[in-house]
Amino acid sequence: MNPLRPSSPNRSPALAETESPGFSITDRDATRQARELEVGQRPGTLNIRKDALKPRLFLMSYNDTVLQEDEYTDRYDELVAYLNAHPELKHWVDVRGYGDLHLMEQIMQEFGLHPLQMEDVLNDYQRAKVEVFDDSRLFMVSRMTDFTALLEIDDDQLSLFTGPNYVLSFQDDYSDCLDPLRMRIRSNFSTLRRQPVLYLAYALTDVVLDHYYPTMAAIGDYIEELEEAIFAEHRPRRLLNRILRIKKDVVRFRRLVYPERDKIAEILRLPEEIVPESLKIFYRDAYDHAIQALDLAESYRDNISSLTDLYMSDQGNRMNEVMKVLTIISTIFIPLSFVVGLYGMNFQRDDGHGHYLPLNMPELYSPWGYPTVILIMGMVVAMQLYYFYRKGWLTNR
Amino acid sequence: MNPLRPSSPNRSPALAETESPGFSITDRDATRQARELEVGQRPGTLNIRKDALKPRLFLMSYNDTVLQEDEYTDRYDELVAYLNAHPELKHWVDVRGYGDLHLMEQIMQEFGLHPLQMEDVLNDYQRAKVEVFDDSRLFMVSRMTDFTALLEIDDDQLSLFTGPNYVLSFQDDYSDCLDPLRMRIRSNFSTLRRQPVLYLAYALTDVVLDHYYPTMAAIGDYIEELEEAIFAEHRPRRLLNRILRIKKDVVRFRRLVYPERDKIAEILRLPEEIVPESLKIFYRDAYDHAIQALDLAESYRDNISSLTDLYMSDQGNRMNEVMKVLTIISTIFIPLSFVVGLYGMNFQRDDGHGHYLPLNMPELYSPWGYPTVILIMGMVVAMQLYYFYRKGWLTNR
Amino acid sequence: MNPLRPSSPNRSPALAETESPGFSITDRDATRQARELEVGQRPGTLNIRKDALKPRLFLMSYNDTVLQEDEYTDRYDELVAYLNAHPELKHWVDVRGYGDLHLMEQIMQEFGLHPLQMEDVLNDYQRAKVEVFDDSRLFMVSRMTDFTALLEIDDDQLSLFTGPNYVLSFQDDYSDCLDPLRMRIRSNFSTLRRQPVLYLAYALTDVVLDHYYPTMAAIGDYIEELEEAIFAEHRPRRLLNRILRIKKDVVRFRRLVYPERDKIAEILRLPEEIVPESLKIFYRDAYDHAIQALDLAESYRDNISSLTDLYMSDQGNRMNEVMKVLTIISTIFIPLSFVVGLYGMNFQRDDGHGHYLPLNMPELYSPWGYPTVILIMGMVVAMQLYYFYRKGWLTNR
Amino acid sequence: MNPLRPSSPNRSPALAETESPGFSITDRDATRQARELEVGQRPGTLNIRKDALKPRLFLMSYNDTVLQEDEYTDRYDELVAYLNAHPELKHWVDVRGYGDLHLMEQIMQEFGLHPLQMEDVLNDYQRAKVEVFDDSRLFMVSRMTDFTALLEIDDDQLSLFTGPNYVLSFQDDYSDCLDPLRMRIRSNFSTLRRQPVLYLAYALTDVVLDHYYPTMAAIGDYIEELEEAIFAEHRPRRLLNRILRIKKDVVRFRRLVYPERDKIAEILRLPEEIVPESLKIFYRDAYDHAIQALDLAESYRDNISSLTDLYMSDQGNRMNEVMKVLTIISTIFIPLSFVVGLYGMNFQRDDGHGHYLPLNMPELYSPWGYPTVILIMGMVVAMQLYYFYRKGWLTNR
Amino acid sequence: MNPLRPSSPNRSPALAETESPGFSITDRDATRQARELEVGQRPGTLNIRKDALKPRLFLMSYNDTVLQEDEYTDRYDELVAYLNAHPELKHWVDVRGYGDLHLMEQIMQEFGLHPLQMEDVLNDYQRAKVEVFDDSRLFMVSRMTDFTALLEIDDDQLSLFTGPNYVLSFQDDYSDCLDPLRMRIRSNFSTLRRQPVLYLAYALTDVVLDHYYPTMAAIGDYIEELEEAIFAEHRPRRLLNRILRIKKDVVRFRRLVYPERDKIAEILRLPEEIVPESLKIFYRDAYDHAIQALDLAESYRDNISSLTDLYMSDQGNRMNEVMKVLTIISTIFIPLSFVVGLYGMNFQRDDGHGHYLPLNMPELYSPWGYPTVILIMGMVVAMQLYYFYRKGWLTNR
Repeated sequence: MNPLRPSSPNRSPALAETESPGFSITDRDATRQARELEVGQRPGTLNIRKDALKPRLFLMSYNDTVLQEDEYTDRYDELVAYLNAHPELKHWVDVRGYGDLHLMEQIMQEFGLHPLQMEDVLNDYQRAKVEVFDDSRLFMVSRMTDFTALLEIDDDQLSLFTGPNYVLSFQDDYSDCLDPLRMRIRSNFSTLRRQPVLYLAYALTDVVLDHYYPTMAAIGDYIEELEEAIFAEHRPRRLLNRILRIKKDVVRFRRLVYPERDKIAEILRLPEEIVPESLKIFYRDAYDHAIQALDLAESYRDNISSLTDLYMSDQGNRMNEVMKVLTIISTIFIPLSFVVGLYGMNFQRDDGHGHYLPLNMPELYSPWGYPTVILIMGMVVAMQLYYFYRKGWLTNR
Repeated sequence: MNPLRPSSPNRSPALAETESPGFSITDRDATRQARELEVGQRPGTLNIRKDALKPRLFLMSYNDTVLQEDEYTDRYDELVAYLNAHPELKHWVDVRGYGDLHLMEQIMQEFGLHPLQMEDVLNDYQRAKVEVFDDSRLFMVSRMTDFTALLEIDDDQLSLFTGPNYVLSFQDDYSDCLDPLRMRIRSNFSTLRRQPVLYLAYALTDVVLDHYYPTMAAIGDYIEELEEAIFAEHRPRRLLNRILRIKKDVVRFRRLVYPERDKIAEILRLPEEIVPESLKIFYRDAYDHAIQALDLAESYRDNISSLTDLYMSDQGNRMNEVMKVLTIISTIFIPLSFVVGLYGMNFQRDDGHGHYLPLNMPELYSPWGYPTVILIMGMVVAMQLYYFYRKGWLTNR
Repeated sequence: MNPLRPSSPNRSPALAETESPGFSITDRDATRQARELEVGQRPGTLNIRKDALKPRLFLMSYNDTVLQEDEYTDRYDELVAYLNAHPELKHWVDVRGYGDLHLMEQIMQEFGLHPLQMEDVLNDYQRAKVEVFDDSRLFMVSRMTDFTALLEIDDDQLSLFTGPNYVLSFQDDYSDCLDPLRMRIRSNFSTLRRQPVLYLAYALTDVVLDHYYPTMAAIGDYIEELEEAIFAEHRPRRLLNRILRIKKDVVRFRRLVYPERDKIAEILRLPEEIVPESLKIFYRDAYDHAIQALDLAESYRDNISSLTDLYMSDQGNRMNEVMKVLTIISTIFIPLSFVVGLYGMNFQRDDGHGHYLPLNMPELYSPWGYPTVILIMGMVVAMQLYYFYRKGWLTNR
Repeated sequence: MNPLRPSSPNRSPALAETESPGFSITDRDATRQARELEVGQRPGTLNIRKDALKPRLFLMSYNDTVLQEDEYTDRYDELVAYLNAHPELKHWVDVRGYGDLHLMEQIMQEFGLHPLQMEDVLNDYQRAKVEVFDDSRLFMVSRMTDFTALLEIDDDQLSLFTGPNYVLSFQDDYSDCLDPLRMRIRSNFSTLRRQPVLYLAYALTDVVLDHYYPTMAAIGDYIEELEEAIFAEHRPRRLLNRILRIKKDVVRFRRLVYPERDKIAEILRLPEEIVPESLKIFYRDAYDHAIQALDLAESYRDNISSLTDLYMSDQGNRMNEVMKVLTIISTIFIPLSFVVGLYGMNFQRDDGHGHYLPLNMPELYSPWGYPTVILIMGMVVAMQLYYFYRKGWLTNR
Repeated sequence: MNPLRPSSPNRSPALAETESPGFSITDRDATRQARELEVGQRPGTLNIRKDALKPRLFLMSYNDTVLQEDEYTDRYDELVAYLNAHPELKHWVDVRGYGDLHLMEQIMQEFGLHPLQMEDVLNDYQRAKVEVFDDSRLFMVSRMTDFTALLEIDDDQLSLFTGPNYVLSFQDDYSDCLDPLRMRIRSNFSTLRRQPVLYLAYALTDVVLDHYYPTMAAIGDYIEELEEAIFAEHRPRRLLNRILRIKKDVVRFRRLVYPERDKIAEILRLPEEIVPESLKIFYRDAYDHAIQALDLAESYRDNISSLTDLYMSDQGNRMNEVMKVLTIISTIFIPLSFVVGLYGMNFQRDDGHGHYLPLNMPELYSPWGYPTVILIMGMVVAMQLYYFYRKGWLTNR
């Protein structure tokens, strides 16, 4: 079993097979992103990425008593008609997928969006931000994160525009992390239904922010597994790569959340007429959450930097252990080899001319010669072992 | 005896057995915390953690002459009645444990707290902060720290609400670090009894702040022991883990104290009508304490980073020592082995056909051959030993 | 094939041969730049670098309906005459190359530039900046980057002066990255043609900014190749040099972009009369792009620092592997050598005087002596191999 | 002679024997300090440390013509009487030692000090600071440093209170660094005698600040000795400890001086009525000095960090040298041992059954066998030595 | 030839011999400076360093048409007389050398300088700064740098005082970097001669600032040489020392330039009446230069830190190479030694009692025994060499 399989629930079981991309620490995503920006284009030009999904349109219309929910994909005109017919309701127009330039331009004009704003929506690599336009409307960008099975933080953009009685949201994927909010709207007793439509914009920001925590929890679980892997007898392959990879993720997460925090701080500074005090109390709460998410990311970064230290030190320890084995074996046997070599010398007691040479290795002719040598060698080994034991080299570390 | 047992008094004797979790450097706590936050919930929804303790209610009522102290657990109505009956007294309503949602909601309404504030109380992972509400009431969050036997900084939240003649405090544990304050209230001559009720809120903040010092002292003691452990003949297992673990604690402590300092700074900036100048002089003192605690944490962080350097260098030294043993033994005996091998060669003085070969190893037939070789080898060893001695390799480091 | 050839299109195929300068991590460019500044000269003295190109003059004149485009090299007077004759058109005077001091002084006086500004233009090492002069004219410096085949960021200066109905631009090279903009001007339907001339200055800034992305993408590709090279069986020569070299490039890029961002921020703070709100909305967009480029550079810097860690760790791993080979071989054969040496001793069973010495190496005279020794040695080897296998030393890492 | 004995004059000759505490890098002082703070005490409670010295009282009274100097220890009432009797003189009341709670409370009330201020005086661990009280009186804390023979920065607190015609100073030690100032007061021609009493407070601050320089010079000398020690043949024991120890000192020094600088900056911002412009010009000078001391500390910190790098690199070099010795000896003798082993083989020319086996080691029966082998081995050694020489392994580094 | 001889022209040829001080990385200069400050002296006391040079006085008097230049050493009274006699000229009073306390005091009083300012002049260790005094006069300190042959940044202080029609400058050395400016004054056509005298003060600041670039260029050249030295076959001695030494220089340079930049920024903030707008345009240019010098220093610091990484990695590579040689030799010959030892065993085919023991080493009696063993050993070596070749251990890195 792969010891590095994160246990978090948002991990697919296919992780083991697909993990190999998880080894790369370079930011392929950023590079791709850099490459896709076209040079020298007129700012505000709308470009649809080739792989963009066909847009699906959803509408949730509600007030404290009524709830109307429908999909208007390919029925954009009906959607507009419905909106115009029901000024008394609050509407959430939920556009998923950008793959229809004509429709996007229609929406842009119908809802009074600036081409540069629409470019930000479709460009899809914006940092979290808030802009006030038409005096009191808000354009907000949030980034929805997910920690994928490939050990990568996947972040999708959620772009919001507020209007007198609607919130218009864009995202490039069909599935998202907003379902808990949809549930709350569907609930008859939800306070959300009684609040003004600006509260819906807040709730969307907040649910995205809340989703940062499971992302971080998944990363935290993975860091823990990495720590265990460092000390495992059989280290997984390219362990340091994995550590540095998750570091990249955490750093990226921080870079996602910082603008989010700044965005909320900016909302808190907006005048009463745009964001009323009764709503700001909720944004203040969201601000605390953003700070906490940053604290968490900071804490993980420290953990990972400690992991790197541990890894390096463990690498040294392993080398040390190898050297100890070599040293113990060599230190014991090299002197012994000398001794046995000594008595393998061929000094002769006879110079070949019949003269007796009594000084040449008389030990070889002693009756106790061999046992004595064996004994002496045994004692040397015993002393060495004792020395190594005292040094602590015989125990594991 | 475990050389790493901290000597600080807030350590349980059971440390040795339970220390193993102390090896982990990853922030399990933070991860758990991240996981517990529920996604997409309506902000202000009150959630009680499953393992929350049943609330106990304590009341201390006092003025300069009177002191009334009682536990009102399960008698909430009586408590409210008593409060209403004694507007002339100052009250400290001390709620410990959150495990009763209904009671929490009752208190929230009775004492005029905002649901988001109550959520902060129950959520229990808030950074230290202060909020002004209802024009002049204060909502303060402090974090009470403890350095546990598991080498972890345990931090509990103390949430305070001030009212016209009461302070309402919440914490999730039955035991806390506030007993010295309770003693001071009980004392008849305490100035605290003569001060306005806001002073009680200050005193609660201050006693929490004071408790940071024993926490830090315990950490300081432990750091000292770690330093000694580095140079011990037998290093404890996973020593670097422990060093990095305590680093994590110190970093976490700093992250706890920074908001505390900011909180006090914010209190100092509050207008005279909310916090009078006569009270601010005390908060200024608390501010100095918070700065000092941060200085201390900073200083510990530097110490630990030096410990890491020492550890790494010591690891290198140990490797060096292993290599020296290997080198000394090999350098002495490998040449000797060559010499004895040399005279173990079987070059013959007779070519098998009766020819005498005088150049083949005449040494073997010399009367002083063996003693001469022994002597030469002895001299080589002596020279090598002298060389190693000069290099300082024979001494310990 | 050279594994480090960046795949980005702005690489020449001659890379492999010319890469050697890419090994240097020192900032020769900066040093040269430092040396070229003449000491003690009167500020505002115009100096032409010896290798400056002969100036070429280009003029694009346009309004919504008309487009006139011509090269006026060596016909400066005609250019001025044309400008004066057509006050109804917007003009882009595009000067490429500085190698004619007299012409430069003529232009300076004709267009009312300050000598210090002209010195900035010719000096050619200015950071991006904006200056307001003559109450409402702008002097802007941008830096155009390119990631050359020599693994170096090449940056040229684009200096802009705005006037009532013209933009005057200077650069020291004939080729540049502004062609996409020229295309847009040539297009009849371009909004640019309908916008005031200040928009042209914006468009020039923006097209330079857009060009940062391919530069970064090329660097990103190269970083990826470096990562693969670290783990290649045969590491390229001086790999760490290359890593540190690219780090230098990224750091330099950041240092280029920071002033660019600050420049745009300063433009955004200029009063309405100088830069109207309708134009600022575009600069705000450019500001977002500058921030994103900085984010990218930041992210690359982190990647490179991770690369350095990987490199160091891999160096340790390679050493470890070398040591393991040595240890395995030595540990197996040194004890065996002892054993065979043991039975190579010459202890005699006869003391040369006819006494039988039965204790001297009776094994040698045992019928199963040799096979037994062979067997024992085989068992020792088997045990050692098993030990190494358990340690994981026989597998690759 | 101990090579690490600092040569600075404020070192006692007993250094060599007492240096051992100098090995600890952990901040025992800070820990002790943390432990001594009592938890939950009423702020403003006066506590006397058990080891506090009995207070000694000194008084210097002067104006341009008169100078009266006396010790009033145990004669506090006389001192007060004298002060009241001479409103025309400027007085410096110099209290050394805190060991008399009653006296301290008397002074506190007599001189109108706030209990929290008095607590700061006795607590003795305050950062440098300035407080304005009673509208125009100043309470200043300075830290007097000394670099002791134990390689520790010893810092004592000097607390100052200004009054209409006196300065009241507290310190916990009998000896201090203020003697040069006392000398200046005693001099008849000192401008100090003609200046208002606030100038005395300035002069006290300034003389403390001036004393930082010899402290730093002593540290600088010690750093220099450490650098030499790194490259010494016989490194002193625990050299890295000493380096990190002095780093701790420098860091601590910076932490002492920063608040000092901030204190002076705050004094410079005080209104003209409290600190007149004619005095501020002197504080501005002191401010420059504080900045310079910080620069110096910064510079030392860089030096020490370079020392750590040098130490680590030297550790690597020493290991390298050990390895080279091993490698040279092994590389030379292991192949030779093989050769001599080769000719120690016992292949027989006779199979025991009378068959002649001419292929079995004919070399052994060649007349020039032995000399040839010796010659070949000599050539191999010569080639290896040449190889090592070319590699530079035979020279020292 | 010394491979580390900087090629910059401001290097003396005597470098090679005198370089040894260049090895020290500790800041002797700073320590000496710290030691020279006398403790407890009255601020504003003038002290002349013992080794101060005898002052030389120079005067340049000019307006657009007139230029008078003379040395007034030992003729101070004549200089004052000349100044008073020519109020219509602009004067540069150029004092070089401080070694005459009486003269310094005379100048101080004559030109209306404050004792603290004069102390700053003579003290000679001031950071760059600007002070306004007497409402509109400026006191400016600049630091003139030079990169000496001893690899040290030499910095001298240039102190300037402006007056109604003169600039008074002080420096402690006879030679300086101001000659280019003197040349410009001497030129009849210099704009400088037509500008007000404040422009002369600017020009002095600017020429000092310009001189930073050759200093940096010399450092840059040296860094380049160090990089080459790292990879040289024979590394120069104490190479890391040199790297860290030059790092110290760069850090010191930055610390010199930062205050210079702040000084100019402060001048730019001075009101129009003190520094007119027409002059500020030149200071703005100087500000850009200061920023560029800082950028350069920053860039060098990064280069040096990369050098350190390279050095460390190269150290590892060298160790690796040593280990590889050891491993290859050992791995080849240790098994061979075993084999030859094996056949050196003395197992007998005859048990001494006439029994034939056929199992004891029959190989020794085989006719092809010896050639077979030689062949097998040759094959083992070939296989090992192939393995090492595959691993890339036989090639250089």
